[in-house]
Amino acid sequence: MVTVELLTIGTELVIGLTLNTNAQWLARRLTALGCRITRVVTVRDELGEIVDAIRDCIKRGVDVVITSGGLGPTEDDKTLKAVSMALNRKLTLNEEALKLVKACYKRLFEEGAIGTPELTPEREKMALLPEGSKPLENPVGAAPGVLVEAGEITVICLPGVPKELKAIFERHLETYFKRRTGNLFSKTLVIETSCNDESSLARILKDCSKIFPEAYIKSHAEKFDRMEGIPITVTVHGHTQQQVKAMLRKITNKICEKLRKKGYRCIKILDFQQIN
Amino acid sequence: MVTVELLTIGTELVIGLTLNTNAQWLARRLTALGCRITRVVTVRDELGEIVDAIRDCIKRGVDVVITSGGLGPTEDDKTLKAVSMALNRKLTLNEEALKLVKACYKRLFEEGAIGTPELTPEREKMALLPEGSKPLENPVGAAPGVLVEAGEITVICLPGVPKELKAIFERHLETYFKRRTGNLFSKTLVIETSCNDESSLARILKDCSKIFPEAYIKSHAEKFDRMEGIPITVTVHGHTQQQVKAMLRKITNKICEKLRKKGYRCIKILDFQQIN
Repeated sequence: MVTVELLTIGTELVIGLTLNTNAQWLARRLTALGCRITRVVTVRDELGEIVDAIRDCIKRGVDVVITSGGLGPTEDDKTLKAVSMALNRKLTLNEEALKLVKACYKRLFEEGAIGTPELTPEREKMALLPEGSKPLENPVGAAPGVLVEAGEITVICLPGVPKELKAIFERHLETYFKRRTGNLFSKTLVIETSCNDESSLARILKDCSKIFPEAYIKSHAEKFDRMEGIPITVTVHGHTQQQVKAMLRKITNKICEKLRKKGYRCIKILDFQQIN
Repeated sequence: MVTVELLTIGTELVIGLTLNTNAQWLARRLTALGCRITRVVTVRDELGEIVDAIRDCIKRGVDVVITSGGLGPTEDDKTLKAVSMALNRKLTLNEEALKLVKACYKRLFEEGAIGTPELTPEREKMALLPEGSKPLENPVGAAPGVLVEAGEITVICLPGVPKELKAIFERHLETYFKRRTGNLFSKTLVIETSCNDESSLARILKDCSKIFPEAYIKSHAEKFDRMEGIPITVTVHGHTQQQVKAMLRKITNKICEKLRKKGYRCIKILDFQQIN
């Protein structure tokens, strides 16, 4: 399985100014694409902190680290410098990235959104990439994404602005990960139970997790919206829809049977994507 | 300054089933109370992962690590076992915690919310704490919070259910951190600018950060709701309201002056707490 660690960068996240929705969005997408997210780390816009965090990923031997944030034109955008330090690569002007940045400011100037199309040092900074990087065109903003392969690890850098992160992911990374995971994917179902005491569900979950060790089965004391009782989620991986559906049916049947034996009901079973 | 690392625990967070609102809530509160959050880490409900993450905090020399999640009755609630392993302390039945758990299930039974007040092994598990722990009464749930002092580091464990985490924080930790920081606190103002090009703000922010190195000044390419132009946030620490206000006035005046020189306007200045 392809292991991925998320490194979300930004003091605004660490001090709580901004809610880290990027981490959740990436985690859902990557999980659905069959990747195994191993950890999410959030650090301040401090060079040493970012370098340390990337080096930790290398030490832990993950396949891919995806960073978000710190690609912009301001002084506190330090991600690419940190990546180049952690990977021992030079930071150099990438011609392909420069073309993308130029084209973006030209377009914004022609649309009247900015006062000058000039490539100031702040704008040019967004084309300074670690040697050997592949820039990923940003369809909705100035800073390109970056993909660097360095031996065993792939480092992918995305901007922190959610709509830019999503657009780059959808344009470039969806197919990239499908290829890397060999079209593995995952699906999550939600069982709404009639039970309101998580401690009563503990044994059912324990038993079912033993019977189906390949599934991720979890109760949620914090209910999803408008649910009467505690929900249980079941997540399963597979290579075909048929295989995943069959496995989910087997597991949810077993859970519902065990719920009934304890005097609880399975109120309904929902696709997780539809409730959240 | 008291340094704090947040360790949010739960596979549901890592795979994106749940949005990590606890991290933001804690980060805001702790920052306002004058703490310096250094990093936020999210790991799966896996014993080895949690132990490693706590040991990393010890290595990094933070003053306090606050965990959320993994205190409940289910098999995948492993936080306290991990803390006891990371700190080399035995996990033992804590009499004070046991009393709290008992009282909670007695109350829930009397209210008709659950079928039995009996202390099952799953329920008793919530009173197994690392030796030397102080349980923190949970006003709205079964699992008590935990505070352990171990040499240089304090480990505080909170439940993952947001309303329980918040209630324990407000009852026990607000005063605890006020004491530890010597009543230091912070305040954030938001300047709404008329500028829509972050690269034009870069130099202003760079200059102002040099003049006021003790402040955290940042532009946000992702706008806050209903803002026309890119906002700039200014965060300042101090021991008195007067001191903090004076500092914020000085900094926002300087930023607005520099905006005007570049042909932009400061549309308005808001208290951050009021817009988010």
